[in-house]
Amino acid sequence: MFVFDEDTAVERVSEGVWETAVGDRWRLGDTPNGGYLMGLVGRAIVEAVPHPDPLAATAYFVRRSVMGPARVEVEVIKQGRRHSIAQARLLQGDGEVLRMTATLGDLASAGGPSAVTVRAPEPEGADLVTPGDPGEREISRRFDYRLTGESAGFAVGAPSGRAVIEGLVRFSDGREPDPLSLLVFPDALPPAVWNIRPPAWVPTLEMTVHIRGIPAPGWLSARMETRALQNGYLEEDGLFWDSTGALVAMSRQLALMVDEGR
Amino acid sequence: MFVFDEDTAVERVSEGVWETAVGDRWRLGDTPNGGYLMGLVGRAIVEAVPHPDPLAATAYFVRRSVMGPARVEVEVIKQGRRHSIAQARLLQGDGEVLRMTATLGDLASAGGPSAVTVRAPEPEGADLVTPGDPGEREISRRFDYRLTGESAGFAVGAPSGRAVIEGLVRFSDGREPDPLSLLVFPDALPPAVWNIRPPAWVPTLEMTVHIRGIPAPGWLSARMETRALQNGYLEEDGLFWDSTGALVAMSRQLALMVDEGR
Repeated sequence: MFVFDEDTAVERVSEGVWETAVGDRWRLGDTPNGGYLMGLVGRAIVEAVPHPDPLAATAYFVRRSVMGPARVEVEVIKQGRRHSIAQARLLQGDGEVLRMTATLGDLASAGGPSAVTVRAPEPEGADLVTPGDPGEREISRRFDYRLTGESAGFAVGAPSGRAVIEGLVRFSDGREPDPLSLLVFPDALPPAVWNIRPPAWVPTLEMTVHIRGIPAPGWLSARMETRALQNGYLEEDGLFWDSTGALVAMSRQLALMVDEGR
Repeated sequence: MFVFDEDTAVERVSEGVWETAVGDRWRLGDTPNGGYLMGLVGRAIVEAVPHPDPLAATAYFVRRSVMGPARVEVEVIKQGRRHSIAQARLLQGDGEVLRMTATLGDLASAGGPSAVTVRAPEPEGADLVTPGDPGEREISRRFDYRLTGESAGFAVGAPSGRAVIEGLVRFSDGREPDPLSLLVFPDALPPAVWNIRPPAWVPTLEMTVHIRGIPAPGWLSARMETRALQNGYLEEDGLFWDSTGALVAMSRQLALMVDEGR
């Protein structure tokens, strides 16, 4: 069994209620990673509805979570022919940690027109490096990263001046990507904004991931970018392609840059 | 009083419950526009919390709404110092039409670093046109549109081949934009995908809008793009700048292209 599956295991204890534990292998300092929490909550949602794949999932982060016991309460809002819609609350103690809404469907049976203009970067041709993590974040051990030298500048005190991170990523224990785990990758890379501002805490307010295809085994190619930092608020957009070059996920989060000095 | 304000008026009838009516001036055929519904629901959310501005708002669309009476039930999830988080359900008859979650704050008092790399297009220099609407959609009358000739190709049987719509937009009755009304604009332009596929119904599954600034009076400059249509599913991203060139909103929706022949 792989770490992601161990640490997102949920047990149904009554109608609409799952018990679980927030693991300590996905933390930044003492704080569990938000993308990991989306994967955990997504696991319960997928168990609650007949459709297998999250197509869109949105989390609003209410307060910091902690390692340890947690409960997921799932409300199925709609079960349609093509899609289900569900919502979940992640609860610890008496408090709500995050609220997530998702539309689920069946990616394998989707049919209709296609036209894609956004292509994977080809970092294979670049000098890829495995960056050090200035924050020595535990979550960094869950993934293998191979970033372009420019992207990894933040890690060696030479930020590129462009709020972009490009490279390859995969689980470090050999688990292959699937639609559920694509909820985790968009929050797994170092913040792109670290290439224009000193590394600082960048807590997520809202994150939405669109799962656009079932990923083939192998590395994911990722491109993360922040185009607008405004009065401390920033978006980070992510694009993920599988090893065949197919676009499999798009993500966007709104986050707040917390300056050390404040 | 302006049409947007008339048609998003809500009346609090009990703790957490607002009554309203879905107006008939924002419809596409017989279906009320989704962005309009976000503005309507957003109005109730803003009344429910102490913070004045939506910073992020996400709607999951559950079923088609109809014109006429509706109820908005708002749950305040958190009231913090800097942010509130709330969720609302829009109900008609016994059914839920949409579920919206939002983080609210105070844009006027936000402070922190800024760095913006995405600039408004300058359609003033281009030959702007007011497109006809192939769908003769009632909602089109609520806005003035001035699109680049390339963007407006879909309207004259000459789709540009690029899934992009660029131009200027404002309310047609002179109402100035504000943070709440920025929830409406991202769903107000013709679908960018109409420039690569024949105009068809493109219902929204999920839409998130980030409000990044308080807009100055005047035209909004807009850029809408679809980069990936995959098996009938597509995202549409929107960027909105105010008349001073400040970025004021980013939007993304996941939608489904419903082919006429299916």
